[in-house]
Amino acid sequence: MGEFDLIARYFKRPAKRSPLGVGDDCALLAPAPGMQLAVSSDMLVEGRHFLSTVDPARLGHKALAVNLSDLAACGAKPLAFTLALALPAVDEDWLAGFSRGLFALADAHDCELVGGDTTRGPLNICITVFGDVPAGTALLRSGARAGDDIWVSGTIGDARIALEVFRGRLSLPAEALELARARMEQPAPRVALGMALRGIASSAVDISDGFLGDLGHVLGASRVGATVEADAAARCIALCAEDGPAAGLFDAQAQRGFALSGGDDYELAFTAPVSARAAVEAAGRASDTAVTRIGRIDAEPGLRVVDARGAPVSQRFDSFDHFA
Amino acid sequence: MGEFDLIARYFKRPAKRSPLGVGDDCALLAPAPGMQLAVSSDMLVEGRHFLSTVDPARLGHKALAVNLSDLAACGAKPLAFTLALALPAVDEDWLAGFSRGLFALADAHDCELVGGDTTRGPLNICITVFGDVPAGTALLRSGARAGDDIWVSGTIGDARIALEVFRGRLSLPAEALELARARMEQPAPRVALGMALRGIASSAVDISDGFLGDLGHVLGASRVGATVEADAAARCIALCAEDGPAAGLFDAQAQRGFALSGGDDYELAFTAPVSARAAVEAAGRASDTAVTRIGRIDAEPGLRVVDARGAPVSQRFDSFDHFA
Repeated sequence: MGEFDLIARYFKRPAKRSPLGVGDDCALLAPAPGMQLAVSSDMLVEGRHFLSTVDPARLGHKALAVNLSDLAACGAKPLAFTLALALPAVDEDWLAGFSRGLFALADAHDCELVGGDTTRGPLNICITVFGDVPAGTALLRSGARAGDDIWVSGTIGDARIALEVFRGRLSLPAEALELARARMEQPAPRVALGMALRGIASSAVDISDGFLGDLGHVLGASRVGATVEADAAARCIALCAEDGPAAGLFDAQAQRGFALSGGDDYELAFTAPVSARAAVEAAGRASDTAVTRIGRIDAEPGLRVVDARGAPVSQRFDSFDHFA
Repeated sequence: MGEFDLIARYFKRPAKRSPLGVGDDCALLAPAPGMQLAVSSDMLVEGRHFLSTVDPARLGHKALAVNLSDLAACGAKPLAFTLALALPAVDEDWLAGFSRGLFALADAHDCELVGGDTTRGPLNICITVFGDVPAGTALLRSGARAGDDIWVSGTIGDARIALEVFRGRLSLPAEALELARARMEQPAPRVALGMALRGIASSAVDISDGFLGDLGHVLGASRVGATVEADAAARCIALCAEDGPAAGLFDAQAQRGFALSGGDDYELAFTAPVSARAAVEAAGRASDTAVTRIGRIDAEPGLRVVDARGAPVSQRFDSFDHFA
């Protein structure tokens, strides 16, 4: 199968809102008046962002999900995406699975594939996603203010536990591993929550490298510091919840590490004024997404991690860095 | 050097027209009223699109140039781009050269880097470029009509000659190789010509896989056929021109092959009504770009290649396909 047959068979679908679908030199997009276009690119490399054994449908889902998560962190509504794909060879089973997983998530978010590129090379998936947001309402990293609450969506740390199992450093009962693996391989981008937080959250970031590391970007952009409650964060690990399938398996120190520096969560970390607590909780309910308060923004620079009694936690937390 | 230092040192510059520069979850773009946004993605892989020995500044230029060439083929004006980069290791000399070449071309086209991603992996460069074009004026592949002239910009075939030298299949005098290599490694995207052809050309495509193969996309999208004059095309090879540094080195058959199926030219192939010949030539002069008429669109489907006397050329021409 040649390059153009491959595109036609697995990636070409009728154009919807884009005036032009896949197949011209460019796709054309026209945001509605008063809207800004939010744009983000993420590149996934085999062995770094996914294991070679991953189910291709789950990989198709994840490749788009990590991009939609960036839109969510801006409060933008997904519109369209481009896909550039380097493949070592044409594997029709793989392509069928990958495109099925990709389009299932795209359709769930009404997000249209409008163009891209395919080439031969070491497996690499680069997606650029487009969303829109009313001008001036995008959630930015720079808006956190001293006194704001720090919130996290959904559950964190589970993906890291799965990674540690695949690395052979941990073992888990089958049921727990399946849940952890689903969290790692099929993250749910918090698009509805991000949109619901427009005008409520003062800043937001999506958690890809680890909660503390990504929160650090907010602190830097906002020129503030923060105090984070390690045990409140650790309670956000689905696996380790009281009725979770890994309840009691890990000690407090391990749980704090998974939650605060796990990475690959694709949840939102966001801040909001104390006066907006009820509004944040309503946004969570409206988007069917758990939201948990786990810290506060300080005027004093730096990041302080404390336990349930407010005492400093001396544990060291690293964030993921591709080149560190 | 870590991932974020790398971005800060080599790729972060003050934001210009984008409300947000590199460093938030998304970049924000707001096309002016009445404008459509043209979007294209291209992925470059070492060993497929460039040799490992290429000068990094030239590679930075080329990675953006091939994307700007897609905007040119739509008649769009460049605005912004994202860069996703997989690097096997942090090589500061390489990064300094790459970013210098990239930004030199970006600045020449007033095209702003607004976001992206960096990760470790086999060298892979994925750029998504954004331009704008007044709604309804984009040059499409689907507009060619029977009777239209077929035109080509600049010079074609030279990049392929360089590739054949690097593959060890041809040899060239040093001066000729330098010219051919510059054409291969530093293509000049025909942005000004593409913009000047709005309202004049009936269709356009940029030549990446080879003239005949890319023209084939126009014929398919426009549901027409074409007759192409092989010798008129061969005269567009800069190296082989009468006063060119490779004049007389190759026979007619070889020259036809370089010109018609060479690939990597990043020139425009476009069509226009016969009545627009003077307007096309004026657009060429206004954009300081040579334009040459090398065929005509036919109502009859299929692609016919003829010699200077109109007799069919039996030579076989292949187009580049990454998976064929």
